Amino acid sequence: MAQQPLTRIGLAGLAVMGQNLALNIADKGFPISVYNRTTSKVDETVERAKEEGNLPLYGFHDPEAFVKSIQKPRVIIMLVKAGAPVDQTIKALSAYLEKGDCIIDGGNEWYENTERREKEVAELGLLYLGMGVSGGEEGARRGPSMMPGGSIEAYKYIEDILLKVAAQVPDSGPCVTYIGKGGSGNFVKMIHNGIEYGDMQLIAEAYDVLKSVGKLTNEELQSAFTEWNKGELLSFLIEITADIFGIKDDKGDGYLVDKVLDKTGMKGTGKWTVQQAAELSVAAPTIEASLDARFLSGLKDERVEAAKIFKSGGFSDILTDQHVDKKQLIDDVRKALYAAKICSYAQGMNLIRAKSVEKGWGLELGELARIWKGGCIIRAIFLDRIKQAYDRNANLANLLVDPEFAKEIIDRQSAWRRVVCLAVNSGISIPGMSASLAYFDTYRRERLPANLVQAQRDYFGAHTYERTDIDGSYHTEWFKLAKQSRI
Amino acid sequence: MAQQPLTRIGLAGLAVMGQNLALNIADKGFPISVYNRTTSKVDETVERAKEEGNLPLYGFHDPEAFVKSIQKPRVIIMLVKAGAPVDQTIKALSAYLEKGDCIIDGGNEWYENTERREKEVAELGLLYLGMGVSGGEEGARRGPSMMPGGSIEAYKYIEDILLKVAAQVPDSGPCVTYIGKGGSGNFVKMIHNGIEYGDMQLIAEAYDVLKSVGKLTNEELQSAFTEWNKGELLSFLIEITADIFGIKDDKGDGYLVDKVLDKTGMKGTGKWTVQQAAELSVAAPTIEASLDARFLSGLKDERVEAAKIFKSGGFSDILTDQHVDKKQLIDDVRKALYAAKICSYAQGMNLIRAKSVEKGWGLELGELARIWKGGCIIRAIFLDRIKQAYDRNANLANLLVDPEFAKEIIDRQSAWRRVVCLAVNSGISIPGMSASLAYFDTYRRERLPANLVQAQRDYFGAHTYERTDIDGSYHTEWFKLAKQSRI
Repeated sequence: MAQQPLTRIGLAGLAVMGQNLALNIADKGFPISVYNRTTSKVDETVERAKEEGNLPLYGFHDPEAFVKSIQKPRVIIMLVKAGAPVDQTIKALSAYLEKGDCIIDGGNEWYENTERREKEVAELGLLYLGMGVSGGEEGARRGPSMMPGGSIEAYKYIEDILLKVAAQVPDSGPCVTYIGKGGSGNFVKMIHNGIEYGDMQLIAEAYDVLKSVGKLTNEELQSAFTEWNKGELLSFLIEITADIFGIKDDKGDGYLVDKVLDKTGMKGTGKWTVQQAAELSVAAPTIEASLDARFLSGLKDERVEAAKIFKSGGFSDILTDQHVDKKQLIDDVRKALYAAKICSYAQGMNLIRAKSVEKGWGLELGELARIWKGGCIIRAIFLDRIKQAYDRNANLANLLVDPEFAKEIIDRQSAWRRVVCLAVNSGISIPGMSASLAYFDTYRRERLPANLVQAQRDYFGAHTYERTDIDGSYHTEWFKLAKQSRI
Repeated sequence: MAQQPLTRIGLAGLAVMGQNLALNIADKGFPISVYNRTTSKVDETVERAKEEGNLPLYGFHDPEAFVKSIQKPRVIIMLVKAGAPVDQTIKALSAYLEKGDCIIDGGNEWYENTERREKEVAELGLLYLGMGVSGGEEGARRGPSMMPGGSIEAYKYIEDILLKVAAQVPDSGPCVTYIGKGGSGNFVKMIHNGIEYGDMQLIAEAYDVLKSVGKLTNEELQSAFTEWNKGELLSFLIEITADIFGIKDDKGDGYLVDKVLDKTGMKGTGKWTVQQAAELSVAAPTIEASLDARFLSGLKDERVEAAKIFKSGGFSDILTDQHVDKKQLIDDVRKALYAAKICSYAQGMNLIRAKSVEKGWGLELGELARIWKGGCIIRAIFLDRIKQAYDRNANLANLLVDPEFAKEIIDRQSAWRRVVCLAVNSGISIPGMSASLAYFDTYRRERLPANLVQAQRDYFGAHTYERTDIDGSYHTEWFKLAKQSRI
C-alpha cells in the first residue's frame, strides 16, 4: 500500500455511513484513504470500492500509515459515534497530524463538544470542522446534505470535494454551504433532526386519522400518499411512507407495517432540540409533541394496561364510529398536515435564528433551506417555499407571517380545525397537529390570557406587571384589596 | 449585640422571602441571628421583628459576629439568588464555620449546584441541605411548604424548627419532610414549580374560553371561580384568581386585570423542568405547553403584527360567534380544567419518580403530595387525592390509571372534548388543555401509529424494528421491496 501516490483526503470510521461517504468521495474522483479500528471494516470497504468500479479508495490498518498517506494539508473526516469515540479518534490521529492539517467530525455531535475540540486541536495547530451529514446510508452514498461549521480555512481546503459529493438539486445547486463558525454546523444539523421528528410525527398522525377514523386500507393509504407526493407535500418522507404501505409481510399474511411494533426509538438530537428550545426561550410545541410521542410510544406495556382499564370504564379504542367521506377526509388531512408542517418549520427556523443571534454566527436561514432541498431526510419541495420566504424578507419574524405562507394557512385552516376536532371526538390523539394549531392561534393573537398569569405572579410573588395603557412596572397589593372585594 | 445568649439558628439573605422566613422562625420561639451584605436590610428586619411583637431576632452587620452568635452545631439558612451569590455567601460564611456546622440553601437552585456544593463544603467538614421553599412571601411568613434534601444529619438538627415553621394542615401534619439525599430537595421544588406553571396556564385557558367565547364579565368570572373554589378545584390558585377578577383598576376605569399587559415573566424553574423531562425521557406536554405559552406571550409586538396580517386575510380574534349556554360552558370548562390538571400532575409525579430511580433517591410520591397540601402555591384539596392514589398503590405507573382518577376522567371526558373543540373552532388556543387531552388519549391507547415512524426510521436509517407477533429485532430492505410494489 505504500507505493500509491498521496491521497486527497482521509476518512476514519467505517460503519455503513462512513463506508458510503468514502465511496461517494472516491466515486467523484477524489482519491481517499480509509481507516477503522476494527480492521475488517477497512477490508470490507476496499472490497466494495473494487466492486463498485475500482474506485480510488485505499485502506489502512494502522493510523500512522493512514495519516501519512494523505496529501498536506491533510483533511480527515471522522464518522464515529458521538461523544468519547470522537475524542479517542482525535487522539489517535492527532499523534501523526501536523500543523495546518484538519479534522472533520461528520457525526451527530453536540455542538458544544465540537467547540471544545476546536479549541483543543487548535493548540496542536490543527483546524476543525463539525459537519452535520444528513441523508442516511443512501444519501451518504448518492449525495447527502452537508452542514460544515467551524474553521472557514478548513472548509476551503475541501470545498471542491463537498460541492461534488453533495446532493445536486437542479436550479439550486449542491446541498452544502459553509454554515458558520464554531459548532454551528452541528447545531443546524440538530435542528434539522428536530424538524425531522416533527415531520415524521405529523405523518404518523395523518396515517392514524385516515386509518382509524377514515378506515382507509393500506392500499388506500398508499394511494393517498402517492397522490400527496405529487403536490405541495412532495418530499422524501411522504414518498417512503407511500412505499411502506405497499410492502407485504415476508413472515406472514398482510402488510409489514401492521406487524411493526408501535415503539419508536431515538438517538438524542430530538431531545437536544427540545432542551435548546427551552434554553433559548423559543416555543417549539410541534417538535416537543413529537419527542413526547416517542417517549409515550415506548411505554407499550403501560399503554396496554391503561387501555384495559379505560375500556372497562366504557372507552373503546376509537370513541365514535363517525361516518366520514373518505375523499373529503383525505383532502382535509392533507391540508392539516401541510399547515402543521409550516408551524413546525417556523419553530425550527426560529430556533436556529435565536442561537445564531446568541452566538454571533450570522446564519442565513434561506441558505439553510436551500441545502436541505436535496440529500437529507427532510428534503421536500416545501423547502423551496421557505427559501423564497427568506429571500423576500431575510428578517422575517416567523414563517407564519410570510404573505405566501399566511395565505396558504388561511386557505387550509377550516380543514385543519375539522381534522383536530374529528380526532378529539374520536379519541385519536394528534398531539403534533393540535399543538401546531395552538401555536398558530397563539402567535396570531394580539391579546392572550397571559395577563391573568402575570397578575397571579404579582399576587403571590410580587413579580410586578406592565400595563397596556401606561409605561412602567407595577405591583399591586392584590391580597389586601381582595379582602375588601371578596364575594 | 454581643451580650445576648447564643441563638438557635441563622439566616443570611434578607430580601422579602428571607426576612419573612426569619420572622416566622422567630415567631415560633426559636431565637435567630440574621445577616445581609447590604446592612440596611438587617436593620429593616430587626425593626420588623420589634414591630411584629418583639420577636427573638438579632441582626448582624458582620459575617464573623453573625456566625459566632449561633449555637453549635450551627445551622444557617441562605436565601440569596441562585447561582454565584450562593457560592459567595458560602465562601463568606464558611470562613467562620466549624466542623459539623450546616449550611442550608433555601433558594430555587439547580439541583446539581447543590450536589457540587455539598461535596465542596464536606471537605471543610460542613453539612449541607438544598431546601426548596414554596409559598411566596406570605407563605414564608405564615407557613411555607419546605422540601429539604441532602444531609439527613443536618435535617435532624433543625427538624423541630421546620416542623413548627411549616404550614400546618389539619389531619395531615406540617408541610415538610426530609425529601432525600443530594439535590433531591431542589429537584422536587423545581418540579413543584413546573406543575405550578401547568396549573396557571390551565386556569388562564379556562379564563380565555369563558371570557372570549362565553362572553363572561369579570363579575361572572369571579363568581364562577368562587364557586369552583368550593369543590374539587379548591386551591390557592383558584382562590386568588377569583380575587383578581374582583379588583378594580386604581389608575382608571374598570378592572385591573384587563389593564395588565399579556406578557408573562419567568425565572427558570419551568425551563429546567422541561429540559429534565427531555433528559429523563418522560413526556410532559402540559408543562411544555405552559412554558411555550409564556415564551409566546413575550412576543407581544410580533403577535400584534401577526394579528393584523391575519385579520386582513379574514381572521378575527374570535373566529365564530357561537351561541353558548353560559351555565353549561362554565360546567364544561370546570371539568376540562380538572381533567387536564390530573394529566399535568401525572407528568410531574412521573418526572420525580424517573429522577428518583436514576439517582437512587427513593422518593415517596405520596409524601410529596402531602407536604404540598399546604403552604405552597399549588396547595389544593386535589393533592389529597394524589396522596390517596399513592397510598393505594405506591408503584402506580401513572395517576391516570388510579381507579379513582380514571373514574373522574371518564366522567369528565365528554365535557373536556367539547371545550377543546369549541376552542379550536373559535380560534382560541388552549394548548395546555389540548396537550393534556392528547396525552391522555395517547397513554390509554394500546396501539399507536408509532409503527409507521419506526418503519420510516428503518427505511432510511436501518434503525431496525420489533414486531408485534415475533420477538427479536428486524431490518427490512424497504427501498428494494418498494421498487417492486410502487404504484
